[in-house]
Amino acid sequence: MTLDLHDDVVSLTRALCDIPSVSGDEGTLADAVEAALRKLGHLEVLRDGDALVARTNLGRDKRIVLAGHLDTVPIKDNLPTWTTGEGDAQLLHGRGTCDMKAGLATQLRIAATVTDPRHDLTFVCYDNEEVASVRNGLGRLVRNHPDWLAGDFAILGEPSNSGVEGGCQGTMRVRITLRGKAAHTARAWRGINAIHAAAPVLAILNAYEPRRPVVDGLQYHEGLNAVNIQGGIAGNVLPDECVIDINHRFAPDRSIAEAYAYLQEVFAGYELEIRDQAPGARPGLDQPAAAEFLAVVGKEPAPKFGWTDVARFAELGIPAVNYAPGDPLLAHTDEEYVPVAEIRECERVLAAWLC
Amino acid sequence: MTLDLHDDVVSLTRALCDIPSVSGDEGTLADAVEAALRKLGHLEVLRDGDALVARTNLGRDKRIVLAGHLDTVPIKDNLPTWTTGEGDAQLLHGRGTCDMKAGLATQLRIAATVTDPRHDLTFVCYDNEEVASVRNGLGRLVRNHPDWLAGDFAILGEPSNSGVEGGCQGTMRVRITLRGKAAHTARAWRGINAIHAAAPVLAILNAYEPRRPVVDGLQYHEGLNAVNIQGGIAGNVLPDECVIDINHRFAPDRSIAEAYAYLQEVFAGYELEIRDQAPGARPGLDQPAAAEFLAVVGKEPAPKFGWTDVARFAELGIPAVNYAPGDPLLAHTDEEYVPVAEIRECERVLAAWLC
Repeated sequence: MTLDLHDDVVSLTRALCDIPSVSGDEGTLADAVEAALRKLGHLEVLRDGDALVARTNLGRDKRIVLAGHLDTVPIKDNLPTWTTGEGDAQLLHGRGTCDMKAGLATQLRIAATVTDPRHDLTFVCYDNEEVASVRNGLGRLVRNHPDWLAGDFAILGEPSNSGVEGGCQGTMRVRITLRGKAAHTARAWRGINAIHAAAPVLAILNAYEPRRPVVDGLQYHEGLNAVNIQGGIAGNVLPDECVIDINHRFAPDRSIAEAYAYLQEVFAGYELEIRDQAPGARPGLDQPAAAEFLAVVGKEPAPKFGWTDVARFAELGIPAVNYAPGDPLLAHTDEEYVPVAEIRECERVLAAWLC
Repeated sequence: MTLDLHDDVVSLTRALCDIPSVSGDEGTLADAVEAALRKLGHLEVLRDGDALVARTNLGRDKRIVLAGHLDTVPIKDNLPTWTTGEGDAQLLHGRGTCDMKAGLATQLRIAATVTDPRHDLTFVCYDNEEVASVRNGLGRLVRNHPDWLAGDFAILGEPSNSGVEGGCQGTMRVRITLRGKAAHTARAWRGINAIHAAAPVLAILNAYEPRRPVVDGLQYHEGLNAVNIQGGIAGNVLPDECVIDINHRFAPDRSIAEAYAYLQEVFAGYELEIRDQAPGARPGLDQPAAAEFLAVVGKEPAPKFGWTDVARFAELGIPAVNYAPGDPLLAHTDEEYVPVAEIRECERVLAAWLC
């Protein structure tokens, strides 16, 4: 498997897709990308597992990080890639086209073609983004080699309809376990129904009014939702337990600790068991490098409501935005595709900004 | 396998237990009971599957039905039977001792020993009481041979601590399905959370005040309880469905139709899907035969809150009570046992009443 990073960006996207790389099985693709990066000659190439870092060392004042994941969700009879339509309306279909081999291709094209960039550049291609957070290759680089990721501003190649989606909201999942006392329903006065005890918790969720704070110029929109409820032993028994899992999405002006304190206030009197958590990321659009980038993109930036790996850069103090071709709502669908014109547009924008 | 119905009632209880007869596997025990009943000579014996009916035809004014099921819940290393303690404190342990071979033994002893009863007698031994209602052997007799069950008053040998537990409450299970619209929790405003929609249903359950009507002299106690709640798709998705199963226990002054109309009123605006239902049974303690029986028992009767097969007699217009040794709260437990003194007491009471 060989890749030519001097190839046309659409051909390169197809080549990156057509080497299957479902999470945990990115080795072949990582090998091919590593070989192609080394062949360029002007980049220092580093590797940790199936994560690659390639960078210029030109002594520029600023360093820009361009990052994308190598893996995809499982293939559903949607490889190799195929196209429909013609010209500006052409679409490239297949697993990974949208999430996120097209974004990766635009970044790798910059690696190959922008050999004398205005800022030093660091390219990051990593594994296991589509699976449990503990396996995430970017997270592993943050732990093992934070110095490899040093930079002033980062672009993450998650699909964003070729507009800038700034930062991301944080997410936290908490569990409330309501306790009761089991009893036969024919003698209910001997027990306490744990499902009935869920009523005030659901009432709190119904009364919730989301904050919509403006952070670095972008308006976020928080959320508080039960995502699971389970209770019941048998058709004739008062259940002694009812479990509610609640997901809170919080704007990047709040830390995890602040978000948790807020939940404790909202659910005063209930014990909250944290099931998982991930911080948000400020969009950092007030940074000079970001402002330059926005000017080249020429579109109004939008907030990113969902959580993405930009938050891992935020943890390192690096402002980061999502920018790539493709509609994020198509990610993970069996019908995922990317408009070919958007791939070319993103490559042009990145090149114009960095040349 | 042979049974001797002239044997001591405690030995007979042990013999009935020690022939395993888990629901669906009652054939060996039914054969043994049938042979023993036929050997008595003074009874007409009828059989439908593993259900047996044996009766006197003495032309008495009244007919009493004595009924008990042959089957048990699964054996849990608790057979053959064993005893602990001595004298009045002796306990008989093992599967079926409490539910309900002891009650069955007292009835079969009456079949053997009361050959010239004051009332005509019908003995019913049936299969599959401990499993789904559609398999119930008494229900099958009601459908196939209602004439075999004709009578003026019935005693069901369900454990009742050797007191009379009159009638039974009806039971109905309804399902409420709350609908929403799935959406990513990071963009909750695009969806409708079906779990949150459960709040008013649970509030209704919390506000419920049970009726405690007196029926034929016994005070019942109704109930309305969620017995199951399920909702949730994934940790980052607003669920589009939440299902609540609700069990209503209603006193025997209400029919199924009246109980359902009541639920429709309580849950006005919600669609109720009936999952199962069974009518209650009035205790009928105002009947002359019942009054005679109560006088011999000499204990204050109590209402039966749970549902039992007495309701199947009620459907045929036959008042029925639960009467047998053993604590109903021990039924189905691995530790089930029956006090030996209660077995003897129940046999004495039945004999004194019917001789």
